Amino acid sequence: MTQTVIAYGAQSQAAAISQISIERREVTPADISIDIMYCGICHSDIHQVNNDWGGAIYPIVPGHEIIGKVTNIGNQVTKFKVGDIVGVGVMVGSCGNCGSCKDNFEQYCEQGFIGTYSSKDPKHDEITYGGYSENIVVDEKFVLHVPTNLALNAVAPLLCAGITTYSPLRNWNVKSGDTVGVIGLGGLGHMGIKLAKAMGAHVVMITSSPNKAKDAKSLGADAVIISKNSEDMQNNANKFDILLNTVPVSHDLNPYLSLLKRDGTMILVGAIEPFKAGELNGFNLIFGRKRLGGSLIGGLKETQEMLDFCGENNIIPDVEMITASEINNAYKRMLNNDVKYRFVIDFTKK
Amino acid sequence: MTQTVIAYGAQSQAAAISQISIERREVTPADISIDIMYCGICHSDIHQVNNDWGGAIYPIVPGHEIIGKVTNIGNQVTKFKVGDIVGVGVMVGSCGNCGSCKDNFEQYCEQGFIGTYSSKDPKHDEITYGGYSENIVVDEKFVLHVPTNLALNAVAPLLCAGITTYSPLRNWNVKSGDTVGVIGLGGLGHMGIKLAKAMGAHVVMITSSPNKAKDAKSLGADAVIISKNSEDMQNNANKFDILLNTVPVSHDLNPYLSLLKRDGTMILVGAIEPFKAGELNGFNLIFGRKRLGGSLIGGLKETQEMLDFCGENNIIPDVEMITASEINNAYKRMLNNDVKYRFVIDFTKK
Repeated sequence: MTQTVIAYGAQSQAAAISQISIERREVTPADISIDIMYCGICHSDIHQVNNDWGGAIYPIVPGHEIIGKVTNIGNQVTKFKVGDIVGVGVMVGSCGNCGSCKDNFEQYCEQGFIGTYSSKDPKHDEITYGGYSENIVVDEKFVLHVPTNLALNAVAPLLCAGITTYSPLRNWNVKSGDTVGVIGLGGLGHMGIKLAKAMGAHVVMITSSPNKAKDAKSLGADAVIISKNSEDMQNNANKFDILLNTVPVSHDLNPYLSLLKRDGTMILVGAIEPFKAGELNGFNLIFGRKRLGGSLIGGLKETQEMLDFCGENNIIPDVEMITASEINNAYKRMLNNDVKYRFVIDFTKK
Repeated sequence: MTQTVIAYGAQSQAAAISQISIERREVTPADISIDIMYCGICHSDIHQVNNDWGGAIYPIVPGHEIIGKVTNIGNQVTKFKVGDIVGVGVMVGSCGNCGSCKDNFEQYCEQGFIGTYSSKDPKHDEITYGGYSENIVVDEKFVLHVPTNLALNAVAPLLCAGITTYSPLRNWNVKSGDTVGVIGLGGLGHMGIKLAKAMGAHVVMITSSPNKAKDAKSLGADAVIISKNSEDMQNNANKFDILLNTVPVSHDLNPYLSLLKRDGTMILVGAIEPFKAGELNGFNLIFGRKRLGGSLIGGLKETQEMLDFCGENNIIPDVEMITASEINNAYKRMLNNDVKYRFVIDFTKK
């Protein structure tokens, strides 16, 4: 039996977020019903609400950094029980049969994964609605255990900002002795610093804003490079094993490539647009055999690993709590880079 | 004592190649004097003669695919004797002290390597002149042994086209079972097919020209994809472990990235210019965790390995022999893609 729940979404492109009612499907045998406690606000929520990337389906209920409590489980559920504190991230489904799914990289499902919101879910014949809501029903395969030692209100952004930075750092085997640069200090960048540091790397924040230097160091960065200072950049040429590039728009990659050691890699996790003229020069890859890669969130297995790693290392994002009535104002502040470093909506306060 | 030798070079930008006289330095203790038998013509020779990349020093004597016979050696030379058949490639010097030089990757010397022509050589206080000449004097460290079972006239292009394709295929560990795409069928591309095939890969030529399909197969390609045929491209999505991109100018990389498997890499060996707007889309790296790399010729150690590998596997480039008087016409034909697949100047015919 479907249930009607209160959610917060946009009825059309460029509309403000307002309270709406949505239907959640009945709990099928593999499903878990979750009462949502906290949901992080990701920058991509704003892009999707505004249909910046195309493909938005209205009404749209954003939210893919979800923490909540299990209230009901299907009769085939084995990993969770009523009362568990759980997380849901960017995906709620995938084909399960392709090479990527079989290798636990559901984010690269060759059929395309089912997004937590604004996606068509053919298995359940529905459009997905995200975490800006009281409740969600999700296949247990896409539900995660949350370490109970962490402050739950702050854990939510790990489900997107955390895994988006953890997965490439692990995949490129960051370890003690490596020098890792994190480009851009926002929701992703601040997690990049914390995670790379916990993996034992020498971590350098690379930012265009001199006024972010102090914050970067308090987050754990060993050093800071101001990218607009050409002398600072030249002094750090050929020093980095890995650059984690979290800048969310297309930008000139060439100055950053010069920071890489021979055989070093810059990994894009932010900018998915087409790059503009001159923003990449083949010369800067060929000389030094450098590499440019990309990485997208993480699979379920590594997302659980990331949560466990954060539990063991006491890593949580820096968050600012808001109530659902403050979402529109939070969006405005995010567009002005006025958040340290992630807004989280508190649904425990009605 | 310096010696005056006949060479073929351009006196200024856009000048035709003509016979000139140059001085070769006296043979110092570590040097080898080589009477040149054959010299390949590389597309970069034309770029440098025309100063397309800046930095040309006139008069310029091109040529960095050199095969010849040792006629004199310095008193500290240990690896060569008079009468040996030897090769000289793109480099004649490097700092010897940086991390790249110590790791046998002289091509990535942090001070910049000394090019075989049109470079300043501070050690010998001279401008370097290349292989379009009767004779050259080179530090033995930058001289290579040539397998004697191969047709010597055809071996010359291995010193640039051969190592430029061999080095990335080896560095990215191409092996039996891998699917390798070679993009572009020219001097580099035809060597890419032969070398990847000899390493055991399933090799696919990817070309915009349907009329090159037959030639690609006769060179050893297992299959051909016509890049302008979108259906052909779609049918081959997510199939390639490695793409060796030999296209010598900036071009739209996005359609090729779609051919890569998850975690696959496209390696640029041709295009060193800045890419134009839209020629790279971050989306195409992030989805599938794909990589774009670059690679530059190879170090001395791996160049010797490449020559030995070609000796063991009887691999030689397809060449068209010319005399020095035909260089200008050869340049015109190369600009019309009218060569299969490398011109080699024969200095044994006066």
